[in-house]
Parts: sequence; C-alpha cells; structure tokens
Amino acid sequence: MAVVVSLEGEREKRADSLDVLLGLVKDELERVNRTIVERMHSPVALIPQLASHIIAAGGKRLRPMLTLASAKMCGYREGERSVKLAACVEFIHTATLLHDDVVDESDLRRGRESANAVWGNKASVLVGDFLFSRSFELMVEDGSLSVLAILSRASSVIAEGEVLQLITANDTGTSEASYLEVIRAKTAALFAAACRVGGVVAARPMAEELALDSYGLNLGIAFQLVDDVLDYSAKQAVLGKAVGDDFREGKITLPVILAYLRGDEEERAFWRRTLEDLDQGEGDLDRAIGLMTRHACLSDTVDRARHYGAMARDALGIFKPGPEKQALLDIVDFCIERAY
Amino acid sequence: MAVVVSLEGEREKRADSLDVLLGLVKDELERVNRTIVERMHSPVALIPQLASHIIAAGGKRLRPMLTLASAKMCGYREGERSVKLAACVEFIHTATLLHDDVVDESDLRRGRESANAVWGNKASVLVGDFLFSRSFELMVEDGSLSVLAILSRASSVIAEGEVLQLITANDTGTSEASYLEVIRAKTAALFAAACRVGGVVAARPMAEELALDSYGLNLGIAFQLVDDVLDYSAKQAVLGKAVGDDFREGKITLPVILAYLRGDEEERAFWRRTLEDLDQGEGDLDRAIGLMTRHACLSDTVDRARHYGAMARDALGIFKPGPEKQALLDIVDFCIERAY
Repeated sequence: MAVVVSLEGEREKRADSLDVLLGLVKDELERVNRTIVERMHSPVALIPQLASHIIAAGGKRLRPMLTLASAKMCGYREGERSVKLAACVEFIHTATLLHDDVVDESDLRRGRESANAVWGNKASVLVGDFLFSRSFELMVEDGSLSVLAILSRASSVIAEGEVLQLITANDTGTSEASYLEVIRAKTAALFAAACRVGGVVAARPMAEELALDSYGLNLGIAFQLVDDVLDYSAKQAVLGKAVGDDFREGKITLPVILAYLRGDEEERAFWRRTLEDLDQGEGDLDRAIGLMTRHACLSDTVDRARHYGAMARDALGIFKPGPEKQALLDIVDFCIERAY
Repeated sequence: MAVVVSLEGEREKRADSLDVLLGLVKDELERVNRTIVERMHSPVALIPQLASHIIAAGGKRLRPMLTLASAKMCGYREGERSVKLAACVEFIHTATLLHDDVVDESDLRRGRESANAVWGNKASVLVGDFLFSRSFELMVEDGSLSVLAILSRASSVIAEGEVLQLITANDTGTSEASYLEVIRAKTAALFAAACRVGGVVAARPMAEELALDSYGLNLGIAFQLVDDVLDYSAKQAVLGKAVGDDFREGKITLPVILAYLRGDEEERAFWRRTLEDLDQGEGDLDRAIGLMTRHACLSDTVDRARHYGAMARDALGIFKPGPEKQALLDIVDFCIERAY
C-alpha cells in the first residue's frame, strides 16, 4: 500500500495548494460566480431556484478555476473572456450533474439533498437542458468558433461516456480499459476542454492548446479515480458525502474491477451478488471495503491516479515557470492526495 | 362551430400541400435523412439504436422541411448548409422529444412505444443530451455564429417553456395568456428558428430573417393548438395516436382552459377532479369531450389557430411569389386543417 509520510504535513500542503490556486484567480472567480447568478436568471422562477440549489451548494469550482488559471498562465490578462467561458464550463458541469442525479437516482449531492430529490426528476432534466443551452448562448456571445467546437465536442463525448457507463453498469466483468474509456469521456473530457479553452482565449499556438488539453485530460482521470476511492473511504464522511453510494448503486469503478480480478471464486460471487443482482445485506459494504483493502485495490487505484497525475504535470513542461503554472502543478497533487 | 365545407375536397387539398412542399425539397430532405443517420453514429451502439428508434419512427420532418423551403424561397440553391442545419433542427427536436417523454412518462410516441418505455428513462435523458450536443457540433462545422445564436437561444427558450409547463401542469386555473406563453416557448420557438436559419444561409437582410421568424412562430403556435385539439378528436386514432393522452396526464391545454372558463361550478369541479387530482373513472374522457363540444372549445381552439395561421401567412408578404412561398403558405392550411 502506498505509504504517505508525514500525513499532517501533506494535509497542510494540500490545503495550501488549493488556496494558492484560489488566490491567483480570486477576482476572476468572483466574477464567474456573478456571471453564473446573472445568467441562470429566467422569468421562470423555478429555474434559478433549482439551479442555485446545486450551484450554490458549492463544489470546489475546480473546472472554472482551471480555465481561469490556464488562461492566466498563457498570458491572458483582461479576464472578461476567461470569466465568461469559465461560467460556461461550470454550466455544462452543472447540467451534467443534474442529469446524472436523475440517471443515478441519487438523493444526495454535495452533502445536501439533490435537486431531483427536492423538485423531482422532471424539473432536473429540464433545468439541466436550460443550463446547457444557456452555456451555448454564452459561448456564442464570446464569439469564438474554436471554443464552441471544443465545448460542443466535449459535451457530446460526455453524453457518450454516460451512455457507455449506463450500459456497462452492474457488470463486474468490466475491464480496466473500458472503465478508463468511460471516465475519460464522462469526467476527463470536460477537464481537458476547460483547460484548453484557457489557451484559446490567450491565442496561444496549437501545441500549447493541446498541452493544456492533455494536462486537463490526465488530471481529470486522476481526479475521477480518486473520487472512486473516496466512495469506499472514511475520508468521504468528512466531505459530507455518504460512504458506499457507488456500492449501493452497483457502480463498477476501478477499485471494484481490481478486487474482482484479484479475488477468488467465492469473492467474485460476492461481487456479483452485491453489484450485479444488487442483493445487499448488512455487513456487505464492510466486507467490500475489507476485500479491497486485502487486495490493495484502493491504494493501487490511487497509484494509477498518480500515473495520470504525472502525465498531467509533464504536459505542462512546455510552459514557462510562473505562479499559475506552479499552482496547476500543485493542484495535481491536491487532487490525488485528497484520497487521504 | 366552424363549418368545413366540402370536407373531402379539403382533405385532398391538404394532402396535396404537404406533398407539394415535400416535392420541392425532396432531394435535400433525403440528404437531411442521410446526415441524420451519419451524425447520430457513435461507437456506443445504444446511441444510434435509441436515436434511430425515434427518428426513424418518422414524424413529418416538418421542421427540417421548413428550414429547407425557407432557404430555397430566399434564393439559396447550393443546399449543403441548409441540409446540415435542417439536420441540426431535427436533432434538437428529437432531443426535446426524448426528454419530454421522460418528463411526461409517456409510453407512446408517434404510434409506437416511446424510447423511454423500451430503453428506460436514463438512456433517453443521456441520448437526448448526446443529440443536443451533436447538433451544436454540426452548427460549429457550419461556422455561422448567427445560426448558433438563433438555435442556442431557441434551445434555452424551449427548456424555459418546458419548465413553465411543468409548473402550470394540472392547474385548471391557467389563463389562456400563460398557456400561449408556454407553447410559444416550447413549440413555436423552434419553428421560428428553423425558418429563420433558412434566411441566414441565404444571407438575406434582417427584415427577411425576422419575417421568417414571425412566420415560423405563428405557424408553430397554430400547429400546437391543433395538436391540442387532436388529442380530444377521433381524428387522432387515424394518426396512430391514442386519444385522451393529454387528459390522462392532466395536461392543461387551450380546449381545457376554455371549457373551464365557460363551465358552471359543477363542470369546474369535474375538471379539477379529473385534471388536478387525476381522479379519473370510466366515462370521464367522454364527458370531457362532451363538455368541450357543448362549449365549442375544440372548434374555437381551431379558430384561434386560424388567427395565428393568418399572421404566419401575412409575415411572408415581403417575399416574392414563387413555388416555395406558395408551399409555405399552403402548409399553414395543412397544419390547421389536419384538425379535421
């Protein structure tokens, strides 16, 4: 199992790296928040009500921060375009969260009742559609066809990834490769697009756009893998999230895939019963965590995440040193170390 | 009640006017269909499967035909852009149908099982998202920011209209004005955008773009009002649709609004019981149709539709005569007369 030395020191460093990134884009992020509030306005009051429930619940605003920091690292200073496009990215993210919760039948999101639990699935589907459309309206205002191409492509890749996940759901025989394909699409594509858009507004050469894309893609994969670990980790409770949501929904994530591959026949029968048949009883979640620990599935998933994190960091190699670059490098560690 | 003289003759004329429109854009419409099939392709096989279920089920392709005919009337001859954008319009329409069926919990669509009934709500939500995103990708390929602005605006107006409808659902006290607001948004906005885009590809002046918008908007309102009438009409069965779907779902449409306003207290209690409480028994649908007939609600709704149809026709006044203009004028009658 990966050993973290000096856990306290690590924790402080992590909190620092998020704060440092936040500090670098603080003004712009406040303007992103204002743009979000302004642009989710509609004469149909339920729309801002429901949208603000999920947007205000807060999340880390990691994706819009990536757009802002990428743009700044690339020398973009005015801020108006990156602010507007960071809001687009957050709108797309929020729209997919609303639809995800409907698809997953989730009752909790970011530690509070999910929008579908409060207002019902119907409103969540439609307000998701609204935010998605509004995001495209904002991009059209910005006027860059390159940005529109990047974010419309990302949106259809996300939808493809979600459908793929739906199909492979509850299949304990899912391979690591096909699981990676799912998270590359459903999570990492938007991270990649968020970063790349920062390079577009700064009018940087294609090589830098693609480097930002690669940084975001690999960071997104690492981020999702750690998310999967957190769902089986005591750390999750601290974040205001329920432990074992993925387990209860029968979601096949990398820790499960590894546990299944490394388990004996009796263990595989356990995984099939609990995750395919969703026949779960008391003690099953504990047993799942026990099996994952025995086979080092959680720590190895974090190791996989480190691999993608390393690729993310190297992708930034072509950029000159500076505070934004450093913050983007450090945020990779933050995304991985939050597993602990 | 509006009297239709020479019903048989009317019927023939109607069938003719749809055929005439079809004949004028036949080649382009075939290319639209090919574009749709090509562009709904995805390595995730469920996406084309589900999408083709609804798209192949066919509908009249009225919206893409409007884009094609509007472009042609405006002198656009090459066809490639109007074909691509007509496919975008159909994708947006299909995405909203998929989400509508989830929201309405419908089991039937275009006379066959709805996609959500076959593949479940989850897949319908996600494939809708995919088609919507794909539509924006196609628009980006086309490269016109004006088109992107028109269709992204239409998309968020549609979503707003759907949310508004959700809120006013099952409220028999809905006013005619607020009902019109709903259908203007959820149905007519896409008709308007479909027509206007035709003017954009032909690079016509803003006055003509706006005339096409107004034609489409009013045609769309008329179309929806007639749709509402059809749901209570024997004609519906001929179209392979169930009569009384709106009634069973407690949908408040103009015929209901008029019947409620014109009814006595006992009748209003009937409407509240059946549509607000959804407490319906045998004979209730027949009684609803009986009340609507007694108060001339169906024929008066068709008369309202005629009013919008007349505005649609007049909006085309600024265009020179020609076969496409004539077909667009005649299609207004087709949309209204299909009530009979």
